[in-house]
Amino acid sequence: MNTTLPLPRSVEWNDTHITLLDQQALPLAVEYLELKTLEDVWKAIKTLKVRGAPAIGITAAFGLALAAQQYENESIEEFRKQLQKYRDYLASSRPTAVNLFWALDRMVASIKDVISVNEAKTTLVHEAIRIQVEDEEVCYSIGHHALSLLNKNDSIMTICNAGSIATAYYGTALAPFHLSVEKGIPLKVYACETRPVLQGSRLTAWELQQSGVDVTLITDNMAAHTIKTKKINAIIVGADRIAANGDTANKIGTYGLALLAKSFGIPFYVAAPLSTFDPTIASGDDIPIEERAAEEITHLNGKRIAPEGISVYNPAFDVTPNELITAIITEKGIITGNYKQEIQRLFAHQSSSK
Amino acid sequence: MNTTLPLPRSVEWNDTHITLLDQQALPLAVEYLELKTLEDVWKAIKTLKVRGAPAIGITAAFGLALAAQQYENESIEEFRKQLQKYRDYLASSRPTAVNLFWALDRMVASIKDVISVNEAKTTLVHEAIRIQVEDEEVCYSIGHHALSLLNKNDSIMTICNAGSIATAYYGTALAPFHLSVEKGIPLKVYACETRPVLQGSRLTAWELQQSGVDVTLITDNMAAHTIKTKKINAIIVGADRIAANGDTANKIGTYGLALLAKSFGIPFYVAAPLSTFDPTIASGDDIPIEERAAEEITHLNGKRIAPEGISVYNPAFDVTPNELITAIITEKGIITGNYKQEIQRLFAHQSSSK
Repeated sequence: MNTTLPLPRSVEWNDTHITLLDQQALPLAVEYLELKTLEDVWKAIKTLKVRGAPAIGITAAFGLALAAQQYENESIEEFRKQLQKYRDYLASSRPTAVNLFWALDRMVASIKDVISVNEAKTTLVHEAIRIQVEDEEVCYSIGHHALSLLNKNDSIMTICNAGSIATAYYGTALAPFHLSVEKGIPLKVYACETRPVLQGSRLTAWELQQSGVDVTLITDNMAAHTIKTKKINAIIVGADRIAANGDTANKIGTYGLALLAKSFGIPFYVAAPLSTFDPTIASGDDIPIEERAAEEITHLNGKRIAPEGISVYNPAFDVTPNELITAIITEKGIITGNYKQEIQRLFAHQSSSK
Repeated sequence: MNTTLPLPRSVEWNDTHITLLDQQALPLAVEYLELKTLEDVWKAIKTLKVRGAPAIGITAAFGLALAAQQYENESIEEFRKQLQKYRDYLASSRPTAVNLFWALDRMVASIKDVISVNEAKTTLVHEAIRIQVEDEEVCYSIGHHALSLLNKNDSIMTICNAGSIATAYYGTALAPFHLSVEKGIPLKVYACETRPVLQGSRLTAWELQQSGVDVTLITDNMAAHTIKTKKINAIIVGADRIAANGDTANKIGTYGLALLAKSFGIPFYVAAPLSTFDPTIASGDDIPIEERAAEEITHLNGKRIAPEGISVYNPAFDVTPNELITAIITEKGIITGNYKQEIQRLFAHQSSSK
């Protein structure tokens, strides 16, 4: 897909190497890594240079394609064995990232019918590019649907980075903002900084700034006052996991924003691809909430900001119950109302159209 | 007043000097400054070593007492003129601190009937100590009333530092927690870190830790999830200014907590002395909201955490409308319901009892 946005891609295939935006250097520096070997790719994923489920999957897919290009034997049987080893190696870089396994396994499956190593090499590159293009199409479609819910000159609030750099391009919750620039529709975005890891200030503020979105940064506790004084029209967030009934796990702070949206009578939107839905989970009660290290809260830039020995509660996610969600925006359209039913319908349609 | 709490005082009179807890060094170091001259006192207030309206007022009052002790002339008329100069000098240390002027002017007024420099010196020391003792009594009384609203084993949330170190002792919103330790009533406190200046993590977490309160630190965006999962029973906050109708200006984030309290059906309490009420202000709409420097949000510990050139909105306070406040806890008792009427009654009673 073509875009005129001055927004860089987080992952790019360059035949002899993968170019990766170093998300850990942001926002202080915009640096690109050249990943030339399978080890480079493993290390980049392991050390969080790339983040965001789709972006990790795409990077890993290109990693397999890259390793395949460097393979010098001619036996396709040997190659398949070797590819499985590459796959297992990359899978060990971030063992909890579901999207990573999905992309790697799709890559391995793509060569099941090839008859030569050369064909396999080409197939793998094509498959990785296809994974990337498909994700960009999904994001574009989400952005397109999301934008239909917004009006010219609206002020919108978001949290965390459900952004372009976490996906192939455009992102999910941030996709309508990037598209609004392409389409010349003025919007104003308020980005919550998203403590403790500051994805809002480090990544979203930077990303929206790149594509020319009118973005203003606030701290998380300014949300209520900002909604009131800046007349916020809607809140839009991404999702980490959506249960069969629409309950949505997302970055900590999302639930509070959903409650504020209800208090102020403004819509609260979740933007997420179908791959984020987990129909095997009945409700948010069954979504485990990861608690992370106290140091994320007690330290910043390596310096202590809280007293020694203080007790800390550091949940990484929260669950927004379905009744607080005005609509869920997917690549297949917008669902609202009885989420259990709507999600079932979405997936039934999905299966029958395959 | 006697206390067995292992909680240090922020200001102490020591005849030849003032001992001041350096609040800027907290929580990394517990350091005390010895203020030996008027200039030391001016500088300590100016450079925010002491913060909190009552604590600033007390420090300034002791500052005048200290300067008076060092005065070596015998003419009471000359002394009065000099004291006025001392007063104006200290008043310039933080020209927006209403409590600072109040304390300084009370000190100057205290010697209007004295007949000698020696008498003036003694009177000033006594008056400064009286200001401190009265503030401690006010805080104790607020704490006592606040504690009557809480139950054994309750979990309570707070924001910012309406604490002992901001007052003579005990604080306002934190007073019931310190008293609960004195009285052996177990409570669990969740302190919001309070971005951008982190008074919650730097000061409240430390202060409650000192007196042995069971305190857990969270980031501000964890409030909703914490209220739900940790079964918070009430939220209690301080106040910067309370309008005639009960609308309350306090640290940014307070309004959001009040809305969450309503969503979860738990009480939301404001703890503040009568001196915080401003009956000349009809409602919160008339309270100006200070916007502070962008660097508070874009930098931490001198290091940039947001992209260059990013727009920032940094309101220091927000206004919680009276209908979200379950009760206001003052040293004269607890008011609730029709705040306009109750506040009038409180001040009428106050005037008639003078």
